[in-house]
Amino acid sequence: MPGLFVSLEGIDGSGKSTQGRLLADGLRADGHAVTLTREPGGSPGAEEIRRLVLEGATDRWSAETEILLFTAARRDHVEKTIRPALARGEIVITDRFADSTRIFQGITRGDLSATVDRLHDLMIGVEPDLTLLFDLDPQKGLARATARAGGELRFEDMGLAFQQKARAGFLDLATRHPRFRLIDADADPATVAARVWTAITPHL
Amino acid sequence: MPGLFVSLEGIDGSGKSTQGRLLADGLRADGHAVTLTREPGGSPGAEEIRRLVLEGATDRWSAETEILLFTAARRDHVEKTIRPALARGEIVITDRFADSTRIFQGITRGDLSATVDRLHDLMIGVEPDLTLLFDLDPQKGLARATARAGGELRFEDMGLAFQQKARAGFLDLATRHPRFRLIDADADPATVAARVWTAITPHL
Repeated sequence: MPGLFVSLEGIDGSGKSTQGRLLADGLRADGHAVTLTREPGGSPGAEEIRRLVLEGATDRWSAETEILLFTAARRDHVEKTIRPALARGEIVITDRFADSTRIFQGITRGDLSATVDRLHDLMIGVEPDLTLLFDLDPQKGLARATARAGGELRFEDMGLAFQQKARAGFLDLATRHPRFRLIDADADPATVAARVWTAITPHL
Repeated sequence: MPGLFVSLEGIDGSGKSTQGRLLADGLRADGHAVTLTREPGGSPGAEEIRRLVLEGATDRWSAETEILLFTAARRDHVEKTIRPALARGEIVITDRFADSTRIFQGITRGDLSATVDRLHDLMIGVEPDLTLLFDLDPQKGLARATARAGGELRFEDMGLAFQQKARAGFLDLATRHPRFRLIDADADPATVAARVWTAITPHL
């Protein structure tokens, strides 16, 4: 497929969303066509599934049902937003993709890693060309995330131990997949943006 | 697991829902504890997913996304309604279960049978002890279904050729799985109910 498919991953408060906007702006200023999107969501159908998953009590769905709903949303997102944009030759930047499911449903709520991987292979298949992992001490991430108004408090509510487990999981994924680039996110936005730019430049 | 798990399957207008109510009433009159449920839906979460799938345009979701949403709803239905009722020793009667996905998403919208089966094995696993297949000439089923006000017009709208393909698919499933009992549904409700009673008696 033409185009470039980039995912941004990391724990809550790691600065992914801010950096996604800065990166999209920078690439557009350089003349690139960019689609900036996010998960769960990123297409009208997937946004409706997102509301179903993120609203209500934390234990409303089992981890398995949640994995199925996220995978349904991802399937729609890939079909309706990501593939068409890549086919037009655009750079697609998504704030979270399958790695977030691998971590947040696959390891932090029990050992469902194998299930998540098999479901991904069966129903999604596609992986990003490049995954930028925003790495940060969970204590700092949690402080940033809780300071921020609104947001997805469902996951953030799960606390520091949860975020530490998630960080370790992301770092482990990064050692196993060459598409990962580690971004030290413990700096001001401009400094982190410069690190992002260094990581993406070889792919342009 | 204790209890008895019965699914009712067949094309639209085959009389499943009417027969489900008659069967539940008869079993209760005989002193059995019965949970009568349906798919998609059957638990509060699954009913919300049902609305997401059945509302809107027919081509709103791809077959693959639809399979994922139905499987998410089924997982919730099994966890929240079916397993707890069986654990209490009840007879669970569900108006549609996984066989409907095998037919309506697995074969009538392209060849996704293998995908549906693998997804079921991965995320659901459980099968009914007994499946009553209400068999009827699709022309008669379609006349009944369209005469009826409301209902799930999304699938019924797909017409006669669709229902014929679905009927052939159900009959093929029935030849391959010993849990199926074929019910000739081309008769008045009382006659069909007597046939259902004959089929279920050996399992009580």
